[in-house]
Amino acid sequence: MDKVCFGIDVGGTTVKLGLFNLDGKVLDKWEIITRTENNGEYILQDIADSLKLKMKEKSIDKSKVAGAGIGVPGPVKADGTILKAANLGWGVFNVAKTLENLTGIKVKAGNDANVAALGEMWQGGGRGCKNVVMVTLGTGVGGGIIIDGEIVAGTNGAAGEIGHIHVEDDETEVCGCGKKGCLEQMASATGVVRLAKKAMEVSDMPSSLRNQEISAKSIFDEVKAKDSLAIEIAEKFGKYLGTALCNIAVVTDPEVFVIGGGVSKAGTILLEYIKKHYDMHAFSACKSAKFTLAKLGNDAGIIGAAKLVL
Amino acid sequence: MDKVCFGIDVGGTTVKLGLFNLDGKVLDKWEIITRTENNGEYILQDIADSLKLKMKEKSIDKSKVAGAGIGVPGPVKADGTILKAANLGWGVFNVAKTLENLTGIKVKAGNDANVAALGEMWQGGGRGCKNVVMVTLGTGVGGGIIIDGEIVAGTNGAAGEIGHIHVEDDETEVCGCGKKGCLEQMASATGVVRLAKKAMEVSDMPSSLRNQEISAKSIFDEVKAKDSLAIEIAEKFGKYLGTALCNIAVVTDPEVFVIGGGVSKAGTILLEYIKKHYDMHAFSACKSAKFTLAKLGNDAGIIGAAKLVL
Repeated sequence: MDKVCFGIDVGGTTVKLGLFNLDGKVLDKWEIITRTENNGEYILQDIADSLKLKMKEKSIDKSKVAGAGIGVPGPVKADGTILKAANLGWGVFNVAKTLENLTGIKVKAGNDANVAALGEMWQGGGRGCKNVVMVTLGTGVGGGIIIDGEIVAGTNGAAGEIGHIHVEDDETEVCGCGKKGCLEQMASATGVVRLAKKAMEVSDMPSSLRNQEISAKSIFDEVKAKDSLAIEIAEKFGKYLGTALCNIAVVTDPEVFVIGGGVSKAGTILLEYIKKHYDMHAFSACKSAKFTLAKLGNDAGIIGAAKLVL
Repeated sequence: MDKVCFGIDVGGTTVKLGLFNLDGKVLDKWEIITRTENNGEYILQDIADSLKLKMKEKSIDKSKVAGAGIGVPGPVKADGTILKAANLGWGVFNVAKTLENLTGIKVKAGNDANVAALGEMWQGGGRGCKNVVMVTLGTGVGGGIIIDGEIVAGTNGAAGEIGHIHVEDDETEVCGCGKKGCLEQMASATGVVRLAKKAMEVSDMPSSLRNQEISAKSIFDEVKAKDSLAIEIAEKFGKYLGTALCNIAVVTDPEVFVIGGGVSKAGTILLEYIKKHYDMHAFSACKSAKFTLAKLGNDAGIIGAAKLVL
């Protein structure tokens, strides 16, 4: 049997696990429950047990396992130390070393958003590139910075927290982080709805948006139907996100921006509005950056985690 | 004799050269003229000749030379390819390979601002740190991003071009790059003077600044003397630069920001104003970042260049 590796993506309710060959082909995929009781003290033991069971089931000898990568929802330093994972009840400890001791397998750990970015670089929207910025437009706005094929973790595990780029001086509402005017307040799933509601309030322009549930998807569907108010909202969203990406570009100069998360279900029209404003404001040398949609969906986490150890 | 290496810093009028031992101690330092005629075609040959002469003078055998690093004023990709150096008349070619062929010595090349950042990390304001952001407040605002001890060059050699972070939506004047509202328009040597002149125009507040030549140094000297208008200008400068550094922090999460360039001659009081606004606006996990002044002055370039090959 050829060598294999594991990719593990720890979420607040389930842990996703995958078995891969060293080319990144998924051989098996399964989930276990995330037991968060007692400050999440059973989680890594449950994962270790599940890996051992899978190895037994598939008759995989430990010598054939190249390693296991694990993505966790919190800031992780380059050495595998997690600094906090409120969802799981975890404080500070070395996730990689702990799981390594429980399994006898080489383990590497990373932040889940960063690990998903690595997955998209390897097999998704960033395929073929080594300098990638992943932008996840979900409940919040997360990100992952990949330079020369490696995750940038940062001194405090906070690299890629691009949802907290400051984009609006005149914002009066407070972001979840305590600051005002963060990108997350404009471009997350709730952020874009907030932009829409504000636009509907200050304008009396008729719009199909007034008669339906508002979401990123419905806004961009109305953009396609040439609804003027929806277009105005899309422009605003594009300006905030596009100029924020310009600011990232002059820091790390990526080859591609990969846009994922629930908001990205609006499709390629979303990219058009981001790219339009990026092109308007980008530093000349960075204008060639590409924009793609994420391709791996919920599998980005296990695929990126597997890549961590390869 | 122990092994040695060379550090080379190519400027528009002179080339600075240094001979170092492998601990980074400077053994000799000298300069040659930068001959920019004929699109700078003599520059690398002049450098090669100068290195050979120095090796002869000091009886250094080629086997004792670990390598030569060279910093050049333009975007350089990770493989040593320069994309443009208007000052020197250079177009696209591989600087590292060319100088390697001329000397028979291993050569690595980088952008001069990035190389200076590496120097400050090694022996200057960022000593002891591996994640460093260098901010050079000179004629323009330049920067260098160091992650895990390595320069981030970027896809187009444009990483660290932080002078073109967008900081002001309401700016009406155009930056050298063609955009409006860049950090460089506020925090460079000319930028801070521009802020001062604007402040003097819109206010009739009495100020000692009205009777003297304005520079970053004179502004911050008046801040020390409690001049109210100077303090207002310093706050504005601090807000622009401090919040721009917050935006960099959520991308790469550095351990230290090293502030250099002519404007930094204003001294530690400059850091106070930057840090005050950084602390007000920084993402919580990044608040522990340190701020230091650059220490190596004009030698940062040759020291960082030497470090390139070690």
